[in-house]
Amino acid sequence: MKKSILNRLEGISGDLYCKTDMEDRLCYSYDSGYISRIPDAVLFPANTDEISQILKLANREKFSVIPRGAGTGMTGGSVPLSDGGIVLSLLRLKNIKKIDTDNFISVVEPGVVTGVFHREVEKLKLFYPPDPSSSNFCTLGGNAAECAGGPHAVKYGVTKDYVLGLEVVLPTGEIIHTGVQTAKGVVGYDLTKLIVGSEGTLGVITELTLKLLPLPPSVSTMTAMFDSVDAAACAVSEIIRQGVIPRTIEYMDRASIKCVERFLDSGIVEKAEALLIIEVDGTVRQTKEDMLNLKELCFDQKAVFVETAKSKAEVEKLWKARKSISSSLFCYGPDKINEDIVVPRNRIPDMVKKIEELKDKSGLYLVSFGHAGDGNIHFNIMLDKTDKTAFKKAELIIDELFDYTVRLGGSISGEHGIGITKLPFITKEINSVELDLMKKIKTLFDPNNILNPGKIFPY
Amino acid sequence: MKKSILNRLEGISGDLYCKTDMEDRLCYSYDSGYISRIPDAVLFPANTDEISQILKLANREKFSVIPRGAGTGMTGGSVPLSDGGIVLSLLRLKNIKKIDTDNFISVVEPGVVTGVFHREVEKLKLFYPPDPSSSNFCTLGGNAAECAGGPHAVKYGVTKDYVLGLEVVLPTGEIIHTGVQTAKGVVGYDLTKLIVGSEGTLGVITELTLKLLPLPPSVSTMTAMFDSVDAAACAVSEIIRQGVIPRTIEYMDRASIKCVERFLDSGIVEKAEALLIIEVDGTVRQTKEDMLNLKELCFDQKAVFVETAKSKAEVEKLWKARKSISSSLFCYGPDKINEDIVVPRNRIPDMVKKIEELKDKSGLYLVSFGHAGDGNIHFNIMLDKTDKTAFKKAELIIDELFDYTVRLGGSISGEHGIGITKLPFITKEINSVELDLMKKIKTLFDPNNILNPGKIFPY
Repeated sequence: MKKSILNRLEGISGDLYCKTDMEDRLCYSYDSGYISRIPDAVLFPANTDEISQILKLANREKFSVIPRGAGTGMTGGSVPLSDGGIVLSLLRLKNIKKIDTDNFISVVEPGVVTGVFHREVEKLKLFYPPDPSSSNFCTLGGNAAECAGGPHAVKYGVTKDYVLGLEVVLPTGEIIHTGVQTAKGVVGYDLTKLIVGSEGTLGVITELTLKLLPLPPSVSTMTAMFDSVDAAACAVSEIIRQGVIPRTIEYMDRASIKCVERFLDSGIVEKAEALLIIEVDGTVRQTKEDMLNLKELCFDQKAVFVETAKSKAEVEKLWKARKSISSSLFCYGPDKINEDIVVPRNRIPDMVKKIEELKDKSGLYLVSFGHAGDGNIHFNIMLDKTDKTAFKKAELIIDELFDYTVRLGGSISGEHGIGITKLPFITKEINSVELDLMKKIKTLFDPNNILNPGKIFPY
Repeated sequence: MKKSILNRLEGISGDLYCKTDMEDRLCYSYDSGYISRIPDAVLFPANTDEISQILKLANREKFSVIPRGAGTGMTGGSVPLSDGGIVLSLLRLKNIKKIDTDNFISVVEPGVVTGVFHREVEKLKLFYPPDPSSSNFCTLGGNAAECAGGPHAVKYGVTKDYVLGLEVVLPTGEIIHTGVQTAKGVVGYDLTKLIVGSEGTLGVITELTLKLLPLPPSVSTMTAMFDSVDAAACAVSEIIRQGVIPRTIEYMDRASIKCVERFLDSGIVEKAEALLIIEVDGTVRQTKEDMLNLKELCFDQKAVFVETAKSKAEVEKLWKARKSISSSLFCYGPDKINEDIVVPRNRIPDMVKKIEELKDKSGLYLVSFGHAGDGNIHFNIMLDKTDKTAFKKAELIIDELFDYTVRLGGSISGEHGIGITKLPFITKEINSVELDLMKKIKTLFDPNNILNPGKIFPY
């Protein structure tokens, strides 16, 4: 990047907030996936106006701008596609501007950490359901850009279901306001839900109006262990079939359990081939009743052990275990290929069998866990990428897995998005007419292709 | 329209399904609003392929195609903008293709009547929440095109929240499939939610994949009467503030009550200035508990009478009253101007006061009722449109009402859409940059502007 452009960027954000040292650029060259590309600079704008100026400059000078929350994405969404361009960190925009206890809405800036937001609204007896595993680090803006999910989606839906309106800086630098501050609204096209989940390719989100719910008065959590993955998968299907939707049904296979067993009651987990974490919410009486029914159902489904958490500390330990899986997997290998396929819930047993089959066939280290309640399985291959044979095998497995997912009526990404890593596979799910329409929407929003270029669909 | 084109349309759908007699064309010249324009022909295609052929022909010959469900819309969405073009009725596509009790989804054609669908899924202990007042006549395709709401939206959201995927014939005649069959999915841009609520301007919906919920085991319904509209409005805000979200909080003012009192217990309603219909659902025990709490709360909020419906027949009568308001209003005048503003829930008392003020000021017959639980008020002016003075007054009132709505942080349409009738007002809510972006999306989908042209934004 030309020095003169860097100077102008410094002029916009101040030199303190325009980082060009290699140390800084390296820190912003990757996300939680495995791709790393070094930007020319990292900008930390203070407000919407600065972001608008930066995007206008990018259009004039034709450089790439890659918006970034906390960089906890899994598919390279916040990583430059090739070396160069600037990373635009939204972390300085971190105010919770309003929590409206009368209308159950909140207005926030994109850099607010999701877990911090959870705690703030809960103080006021309100509830923001989207809860990605990275909630202690990730940001609401990043969640919206990727349409993050998490364990509560089975009952409460995903981020998109909670975004009522947005302030967005378009790739051209223009500022728009989308959506409503109300429970309903059908005026014009729904730009809000088009931009949420567009992986930072259609605009930079600078403010979000979020829908909140009343905080459920009671939550109960239980673990159920099974001596086969198949039994656990069948139990998930059966729970849903009963008609009481838990707020969470998380699944962990033997390998996932193993790598977080320090957080779990070791005497119990030793025998478990699969574990479910099931959580219900509602009134105290209702959750008690639901727990009893679920316990019975799990035993009917051949659970070998079922236990209800007795204290908040026990629940927290359990969630610490669950949320630590992703980062703990590196005990199995230095590199991780992580896919988040989703299948219709009653096809989870088929998918689990397929994964077992792939494991046996390849001899690679496969680990699966995830949000079984909504059919969303996180499938991980742990390997050393410098081992060419292993990497080639992994590529073949992913290909087979995606084909099978689509054949089951599923989707190749439940919550991580396409980013860079799933680019080669998008056509398994989206045909050329649909893809062409999406590309044209991208061009309409971003005629110079400067905002997060090359993501989702190749040009 | 040239005879040669009509012949080719007949060739596509068969002459039985291509109506060109004036009697037929007149029947399809209006919706439930007040605008009427006569099409050149009414087509009743049998399937997606015929629709694709019709749209391709329209592109070649440059005639307008106006898709239509049951014509129960309120803003002219299914009415030709000027005389001419063809109305495309989707009523022959009326199969419920699948109700999947394992995964809680259904695949339907657009011509399925919403009320019929409700009853079919309920037989299988499933629940499809969107429930517009016209549910006994309107269609699922029309509901999706307009993003219909209804009384359950306060707890369960609107049509968009239940559409997982679509088959759509694009204005160019190409057929696409959007969305997923699963609980999650973030692959590519969300075309589903862009097309739902686009008022038939971006494509013709030929199949919908809908999300279902387990049927709540119990529903309890109560009426609460108040001796002032203000007291009723304050009660609504207070109910929501308590944190238990009823599935319905419907509001009726004195004039609405009056015109459907034949369905209500006349001894009671005589004194009522306002009435709320409140409905909760859940387990038997939970709904009983909620009803007791709500009864107490209503009395605290100065209700003069509160009664719980004791039988299914009583509930049905109550809903018959509520759903009959819109069509019964003609007892007050031959013409109706109907607006569906939405405001933040805690501003309902302000809005109700404003409406009373407008009533006093204008001397016109104003009636308001609606989905108070989500701030969505149906505001009606009953008049004789040939009375120029009254019509002029009505126009001024609407203008003032919309300005006030936007000032309260509301939206000028909660569920009816813009169509033709709200065209002059859209810029009160959407600015020129946003509108321009929407127009460009329309052009991208429909380069020859043949599909439902002139709706939402003027060209």
